[in-house]
Amino acid sequence: MASESEAQRALQYEQTLMYGRYTQDLGSFAKDEAARLRLQEGDTPRPRRPSELLEYTQGRCAPCRVCALQCQRFLISKVGEDWVFLILLGLVMALVSWAMDFAIATCLQAQKWMYGGLDTNVLLQYMAWVTYPTVLITFSAGFTQILAPQAVGSGIPEMKTILRGVVLKEYLTLKTFVAKVIGLTCALGSGMPLGKEGPFVHIASMCAALLSRFLSLFGGFYENEARNIEMLAAACAVGVGCCFAAPIGGVLFSIEVTSTFFAVRNYWRGFFAATFSAFIFRVLAVWNKDEETITALFKTRFRLDFPFDLQELPAFAVIGIASGFGGALFVYLNRKIVQFMRRQKTINRFLMKKRLLFPALVTLIISTLTFPPGFGQFMAGQLTQKDTLVTLFDNQTWAKQGISDEFEYLGILEAWHHPRSNVFITLVVFILMKFWMSALATTIPVPCGAFMPVFVIGAAFGRLVGESMAAWFPDGIHTDSNIYRIVPGGYAVVGAAALSGAVTHTVSTAVIVFELTGQISHILPVMIAVILANAVAQSLQPSLYDSIIRIKKLPYLPELGWGHHEKYNVRVEDIMVRDIHYVTLNCKYRDLQQVLHSTKMKNLPLVESAESMILLGSIERTQVGALLSSQLSPQRRLLTLRQKVLSEDGHRLSDSSIRFQISTETSSGSPARPALRKPLKPALKRVPSSPPDSPPVGSADHSGIALKSLFCANAATEPTEAQGTAYHKAKRVRISIVEEMILGDKMTPAEILEWEEQQLDQVADFSSAKIDPAPFQLVEHTSLHKTHTIFSLLGLDHAFVTSIGRLVGMVTLKELRKAIEGSLTGKGVKVRPPLASFRDSTASTTEADTTALHQLWDRHQHHHMPREAGPGGDDDDDTPKGQ
Amino acid sequence: MASESEAQRALQYEQTLMYGRYTQDLGSFAKDEAARLRLQEGDTPRPRRPSELLEYTQGRCAPCRVCALQCQRFLISKVGEDWVFLILLGLVMALVSWAMDFAIATCLQAQKWMYGGLDTNVLLQYMAWVTYPTVLITFSAGFTQILAPQAVGSGIPEMKTILRGVVLKEYLTLKTFVAKVIGLTCALGSGMPLGKEGPFVHIASMCAALLSRFLSLFGGFYENEARNIEMLAAACAVGVGCCFAAPIGGVLFSIEVTSTFFAVRNYWRGFFAATFSAFIFRVLAVWNKDEETITALFKTRFRLDFPFDLQELPAFAVIGIASGFGGALFVYLNRKIVQFMRRQKTINRFLMKKRLLFPALVTLIISTLTFPPGFGQFMAGQLTQKDTLVTLFDNQTWAKQGISDEFEYLGILEAWHHPRSNVFITLVVFILMKFWMSALATTIPVPCGAFMPVFVIGAAFGRLVGESMAAWFPDGIHTDSNIYRIVPGGYAVVGAAALSGAVTHTVSTAVIVFELTGQISHILPVMIAVILANAVAQSLQPSLYDSIIRIKKLPYLPELGWGHHEKYNVRVEDIMVRDIHYVTLNCKYRDLQQVLHSTKMKNLPLVESAESMILLGSIERTQVGALLSSQLSPQRRLLTLRQKVLSEDGHRLSDSSIRFQISTETSSGSPARPALRKPLKPALKRVPSSPPDSPPVGSADHSGIALKSLFCANAATEPTEAQGTAYHKAKRVRISIVEEMILGDKMTPAEILEWEEQQLDQVADFSSAKIDPAPFQLVEHTSLHKTHTIFSLLGLDHAFVTSIGRLVGMVTLKELRKAIEGSLTGKGVKVRPPLASFRDSTASTTEADTTALHQLWDRHQHHHMPREAGPGGDDDDDTPKGQ
Repeated sequence: MASESEAQRALQYEQTLMYGRYTQDLGSFAKDEAARLRLQEGDTPRPRRPSELLEYTQGRCAPCRVCALQCQRFLISKVGEDWVFLILLGLVMALVSWAMDFAIATCLQAQKWMYGGLDTNVLLQYMAWVTYPTVLITFSAGFTQILAPQAVGSGIPEMKTILRGVVLKEYLTLKTFVAKVIGLTCALGSGMPLGKEGPFVHIASMCAALLSRFLSLFGGFYENEARNIEMLAAACAVGVGCCFAAPIGGVLFSIEVTSTFFAVRNYWRGFFAATFSAFIFRVLAVWNKDEETITALFKTRFRLDFPFDLQELPAFAVIGIASGFGGALFVYLNRKIVQFMRRQKTINRFLMKKRLLFPALVTLIISTLTFPPGFGQFMAGQLTQKDTLVTLFDNQTWAKQGISDEFEYLGILEAWHHPRSNVFITLVVFILMKFWMSALATTIPVPCGAFMPVFVIGAAFGRLVGESMAAWFPDGIHTDSNIYRIVPGGYAVVGAAALSGAVTHTVSTAVIVFELTGQISHILPVMIAVILANAVAQSLQPSLYDSIIRIKKLPYLPELGWGHHEKYNVRVEDIMVRDIHYVTLNCKYRDLQQVLHSTKMKNLPLVESAESMILLGSIERTQVGALLSSQLSPQRRLLTLRQKVLSEDGHRLSDSSIRFQISTETSSGSPARPALRKPLKPALKRVPSSPPDSPPVGSADHSGIALKSLFCANAATEPTEAQGTAYHKAKRVRISIVEEMILGDKMTPAEILEWEEQQLDQVADFSSAKIDPAPFQLVEHTSLHKTHTIFSLLGLDHAFVTSIGRLVGMVTLKELRKAIEGSLTGKGVKVRPPLASFRDSTASTTEADTTALHQLWDRHQHHHMPREAGPGGDDDDDTPKGQ
Repeated sequence: MASESEAQRALQYEQTLMYGRYTQDLGSFAKDEAARLRLQEGDTPRPRRPSELLEYTQGRCAPCRVCALQCQRFLISKVGEDWVFLILLGLVMALVSWAMDFAIATCLQAQKWMYGGLDTNVLLQYMAWVTYPTVLITFSAGFTQILAPQAVGSGIPEMKTILRGVVLKEYLTLKTFVAKVIGLTCALGSGMPLGKEGPFVHIASMCAALLSRFLSLFGGFYENEARNIEMLAAACAVGVGCCFAAPIGGVLFSIEVTSTFFAVRNYWRGFFAATFSAFIFRVLAVWNKDEETITALFKTRFRLDFPFDLQELPAFAVIGIASGFGGALFVYLNRKIVQFMRRQKTINRFLMKKRLLFPALVTLIISTLTFPPGFGQFMAGQLTQKDTLVTLFDNQTWAKQGISDEFEYLGILEAWHHPRSNVFITLVVFILMKFWMSALATTIPVPCGAFMPVFVIGAAFGRLVGESMAAWFPDGIHTDSNIYRIVPGGYAVVGAAALSGAVTHTVSTAVIVFELTGQISHILPVMIAVILANAVAQSLQPSLYDSIIRIKKLPYLPELGWGHHEKYNVRVEDIMVRDIHYVTLNCKYRDLQQVLHSTKMKNLPLVESAESMILLGSIERTQVGALLSSQLSPQRRLLTLRQKVLSEDGHRLSDSSIRFQISTETSSGSPARPALRKPLKPALKRVPSSPPDSPPVGSADHSGIALKSLFCANAATEPTEAQGTAYHKAKRVRISIVEEMILGDKMTPAEILEWEEQQLDQVADFSSAKIDPAPFQLVEHTSLHKTHTIFSLLGLDHAFVTSIGRLVGMVTLKELRKAIEGSLTGKGVKVRPPLASFRDSTASTTEADTTALHQLWDRHQHHHMPREAGPGGDDDDDTPKGQ
C-alpha cells in the first residue's frame, strides 16, 4: 500500500518535475459533470440576471433606476469594446513587465554588491556568489511547486495547445499567475541563463483570461468563448511585445509560435495591444529617468551609410547555417537531458525524495563555473545577461589585426578581456559553456524560457565570426577608395537572430532583433541568416516548443513538414478507423449498454440503421449513459408499478398529478441528498466484482442485496473510472434513490432485475438526448494534407468519414498524428494522382461510391415499389447485400 | 439590331473601362465543358505519360535509358522542391522589377530632357510636358485594352478573390502578364501619380502561375491545386517585397491584403521568396553602380540617440487620426468618381466611342496642372514621385522659425522653394492637388496602383505637420540641457505610413516604411499613427481593395467589422434559405427536369426521400443535366428500337456487340462531327420560342420539324444561357446525332415524344452521376460569426443546413454577404445568449431538433416493427406526418 502510493507520487513527481502536469482528465470530468447538471435542470427556469430583476421589481423610484441602468449599460457596452480590453491588458502587462524588470535588476545588483563587498576573501566571495542564486532558484522551484506546478517552464507549448482548442483550464488561473510572476522574478534574479519571453507569453495569456473573467462581472460580452480565444491570441503578442518592447516582432513571433492558421481579423488586436504595452513599458523607463526618451532596449549605433559589404554576405550565410545546426543541437540536448533525468531511476528516486535538490544542484554547478575569479574569468562570468548583450552588440572592433591588446577595454567591456588569452578564446569558451548550461538550466522546474539565453549565445557566436572577419580583413573588404571597416556588432545581431530563430523555428526573430537594437540596416544579412538557420534546423529537429509538447504529451497536432509531397497522396481511407461502434436510431437500450461497454470513444455516431448506415449525427458518451440510466431509473419503475396498482385498484389520485410529483423529484433528487449518497461510496468500492449478468444470490436482506447485486452486475463490465464516470455516477444516483424508495417499494431484487431486463429490451427513445446534428464529415478520398488543414483550422479532435451519407469510418487526432509522424504509412506510400482542390471533391467520386449509391438506390427501389415477394419489413435488410 | 449591339458594347465598355472585366461565366462554361468531356471519355484509357512510355517501348538500349531516366527523375524531384520554385520566382520577379524600374527611370529622364532642352519656348515646353505622358498613357490603355483587359487596375482585389478560392483563370495568363508589365511601365513612365505596388502583386502571381505551369512540364508536382494556391500566396509577398525591397513588410502586407485566414506553414515561403527577390533586386542596383552597397530604397539619416521626444507623441497621434479621415475620404472619392463616370450616360456614350479619350483627357488635365512654369511651381510639379519622396524624407528642417528664406534649398530640394510663397503653402497645395489627382488617376483603365501616390501624399502631410512643429518649437520641446531639434523628416515617415495604412486598412505599412527608410527609430510614433489611422478609416469606409471588389462585384465575402457583437448573436436559421429545391434518390427523370427548370443553383442537394429529407450528398447541376440527356439520348432510343426489332426478327448480330458499337459511338460522337453540328447553331437561334410542351405541328419534313419542335419544347422552359449551358449543349449534341441517325431511324416525331415522355416517367438512376458525398453542413444554431469563419476558412460558396441528418435549408455566399452588410437583419437584432465554442455545439440542440428526431424515430418504429395495417410500401410516406 505504502509502496504503491510512493510509486504514484514518484510518477507525479516525474511529471511535475520537468514541465508541470497535464490533467485533461480533470477537465473532462468537469465537463461531464456540467453536462449532467445541465441535463437535470433542463426544466427548472434559468435564474434571471440582476439587471432584469431590477426592471421588474422596483417600480417605486423607476425613472431614477432607469437612468442609472442606462448609464450602467453605456459603461458596460464600453467595457465590452475590444479596445478597452486590449488597453487594459496592455497597461497591466506593461506594469507587470516593468515591475519585474525592476525587481530582477535589484536582485542582480544585490548579488553584485555582495560579491563586490566581499572582495577581501575569495572563499566568502565564492560562498556569496553561489549561495545567492541557489537560494533564489530553490525558493522559486519550491514556491511554484506548492502553489501551481502548471507555472513551471515556458508556457508557450501550453498556449499553443490551448489556442488549438484544447481546454487546459488550470493553466489560466490566478494561482498560476501568481506562481509564475513570483517564480520567474526569483529565477531571473538569480542570474542563471534563463529567459523571460516564453513565461511572459503565458503570463499575458493568464492576465487576459483573468481580466476577461473580471470584466464579465460587468456584462456578458466576455462569456463568449470564441472571443476569449481571440483575446488569448492577442495576449500572446502582448507578452512578447512588452517583454522586449518589440510590438511588431511580438505579434509575428506569437503568431508563428502559437498558431497553425491565423485569422487576419485578429491581427490589429495583437498590434494594438502590443504597441500600447510596449509604449507604456518604455514610457515607464523614461519616467524612472533610466532613459531620456523612448528608444530601443539594446540600442546599437552601427554606421548607416555603409552597414556591410556585399562580399560579407557569405560570412552571414555561414552564421545562418551554423546556427541552424546549433539550434537543432540545442533542442536535441535539451530533450536528451529531460529524458535522461526521467530514465535514470537511481537519480530519480533520490531526487524524488528531495524535490528541490535538482534545481539547487544545477544552480550550484552553473554558478560555480561562472565564478569570476575562477573559471568565470575565461567566459565573462561576471556580466549579467543584459550586460553581455550590450557588450556583444558593441560598435567597436575588439580584435584588430589579431592582437587583442591594441584595443582598450573600457567599462563593462573589460569582462571580455583576459590578460593571458585573447578575445577569441574567451568567446569560444563562453559559447561552449553557455550552450550546455542553458540547455541544462531550462530543464529546472521553475518558470523560465530559453529564448534569451539562446539569443545571447547566438550573439556571441556572431561576434566570434565578426571578430574573425575583422582580423582577417583589417581594412574591410571593399576595394574602392573609401575604407569601410567590418562591424563585428552587426555579425552579433545576425547571429542572435539566426540562433534564436533556429531554436524556435521562427523567422520573426529577425524583426525582434531590429526592434531590440533599433536598427534595421542589417535587414538582408539577418533575413538570409534566419532563413538558412530555419531551413537547416527544421529539417533536423522539431522546434523547442514542439519538442516540449511531445515530452509532455500534450494533445497537439504536429505540423506537416517542409514540402513533403507524399502527404498530398495519403488519403483518409488509408488512415481511418473502419471498425467503429455506432448507435442506431432503432436500437434497444441493451445495444446502448453494449456500445458503452465495448468502446471508449467520447462521441458515438448515430446512424439511421445498421444496414443503411446513414449518419444522422453524433451523440456524446455521457448522453448515452444518461439515457440508459433514466430508462432504468427507480422512478420509472415505481411509476409503472403505481400505474399498474392504480389501474387495478381504482383511482386514488389522478394519473397526471402523480407523474408531475415524480418528475420534479427526479430533477432535484440527487443534489438534494448528498448525505445519503456519500457513505455509500466506500461500501460499494469494497464489493468484489462478479461476472456480468449473474443472477442475484437469493434475497436475504432486501435493500442490501439488491444494491450489491445491482452494482456487481454492472461494475465488472464497466470501463475504467475515468471513461465511465457519467454512467457510473448515474448508477450511483440511481442506487441511492433505490435505497430511499425501496422502503415504500414492494419489488424484490429478482423482480427488479426482471423489470430491468424488460426495460433494456425496449427500443431506445432519443427524444430527450442531446445530439450534435452536424458532426464534421470527411470523404474517403480527402488527402492527409487537407485533413490536417481542416483539423487545424477548425480545432477538431475527431471527424466521421462518410460516403454518400453512409458512415464508413472515423478519424481522430491520434490517427492523424500517427499518419503525419509516418508510423502508419511510412515513406513508401503509393503515389496517387494529385488531388483536386476542396471545391472539386465532386470529381473524386470513384466506383466504390457509385456502387454504394447503387445499393442504396436499389434498396429504395425495393422500398417504394409495390412488392411482389416478402410482405414483411425485415427482409429488406438483406436484399441489398444479396444483390 | 445595330443599337442593340451598340448597347451591348456600351455595357462592355462600362465594365472594362474602369477595372477590367470579370468573366466568371466563361470560367464556369469551361468547367462545364470539361465535366461533360470527362463524363464522355469515362471509359477511354488515359493517355500515358512520356516517361511511362519510355520504359515500356524502347527496350533496346535499356540501361542507358534507365540511367537517363534516373537522372531526369532526380532533376525533376529537385525541380519539385518548393525552394527551387521560390528562388526561381524571386529571381524572375527581381529581374522584372529592376528592368521595369530602369525603363521607367529612362522614360522619366527622357521627359525631363525634353522639358529641359526646350527651355527657350514655354509653349513648346508645355507641349512636350503634356504630350509625352498623354501618349504614354494612351498607348498603355490601348495596349492593355487590346491584349488583356484583365490587366487593368491594381490586381490586389482579384488576387484576394483568387486566394479565397474563386477561379478567375483569365487573370493569370501569359497575355495578361505581358499586358500588365508593358502597360505598367508606360503608365509609370508618364509621371502620373500612379503606383506599382498593387500591379506588382498581380505580376508576381501571374509569374508564379506561369512558372508552375512551365515547371509542370518536368513533373506532376505542380498539378496540385492546393500547392499552387500556397505558391500564389507566397508570390503576393514577392510582389511587394521586390517592389519596395521590403521583404518583411511585403509578406505582412500581402497577408493583410489578400488573406482572411493565413496558414502559418506558408509563412516561410513568403519570407524566403521575398527576401531572395529583394536581395537580387538590390544587388542589381549595386552591380549597376547605382549604389555602393545594399541599403534601403529611400534611406533616411535621422539621429539615432534622440529620435523624438515623448511630448511630440500627441502630434504623431494627430497625424494618425487625420490620416484616418483622409484615407477614408480617398477611398470614398475614388469610388464616387468611378460611379459618376458610370452613371453619366452622356459622358459614357461619348467616351464609349473613343475608348482612349478618357485616359488622355485625365492625363492632359493632370499634366497641365503640374507644368512647372505654370501652376506646378506651387506644388513641386517638376519632381518625380521618387524625388518627391526623397525630398520629403529629408533630414533638414525647411522652415526655421516660420521664415522659409533662412534655409538654403539645394539640388532637388529647390522644387519646394518658391520665391513668392513659403513652404507651408507649397505643401498644402501639393497635398490638396495630389489628393484628387491620385484619386482620379487611379481610375484610368491602365495597370496601376494607388499605394505609392497615397504614400507620397501622406509623407507630404506628415512633413507639413513636422514643419509646423519645427516652426512652433524652434529649439525642440525637450526641457533638459541638451537641445534636440524637431526632425520634420520623421513626421513625413509617420504620415506616409499612416495614410497608406488608412487607405489599405493595413498595419504592415509601418514595417514597409521601416524597410524603405532603413531606420526603425520612429517605431512607436509610426505604430501609434498607423493604428489610429486604421481605427478611424475602418469605421468609416471599406479598404480601397474591398471598395474595388464591390464596384467590380467580384464574388467575395466581406469582413466582419471591428467588435460587432451582434454578429455573434445572428444565427444561420435567421439567414438561411428554407425553400430549396432538391433531388430525391427515388425521383423520376421528370422531377429532375422540373428541378432544373425551377432553380438556378449550381449544386443540388440529394436527399433520401421527400419525407425523410436525409441529406446524402450534393450533385452538380451539370451532372443532373447530363443524366437527363443521357436518359433521353437517341442512342438509347435506337437501342430499345433495335432490341425490339431484334427480338421480333431474330438475331442478325449478337446483342452485346451492338451495345458495344453504340457505346463507342456515343463516347466519340460529338467531337468527331463538328462540321455537322456547326451550321445548325444559327438556324436554331432564329427559331421563335413557343410555350413549353406544345405538341409538334404536323410532320411535313421529318428532320426539320422534329428538330424544331424538340428545340422549341425546351428552349422556353430553359433558364438563361449561362445557367443551362450543359443541358443545352447536351440537347444540341443529341439533336445533331438525331439528324444523323434519323435517316436510319423509322420513328416519327410524335413517337419520339411519346417515347421521351415514357422515359421521363422512369425512376432516375444516379449510379453513373458524380456525387459529392460530403457537402459542407451547418446547424441552424451556428452563429453568423462562426459561419463566416468557416466560409472564409474553407473557401466555401454554399453550405447545407441540416438538423440530425435532415436538410432544412441552405446558405450561400449571397445570404452571408447580405447578413454581414446588415440588409437582412439590421442592427436591432434580437440578442441571444452568447454561443458556446465550436466543440460544444452539442449543447445547442433545442426542442425543434428533438421533435424532428422524435418524428424520425417514430417513422422508424413503424418501419421495423411488424406491421398490422397497410401492407404496401407507399403508406409509410404519410404516417409520420399524420401523427
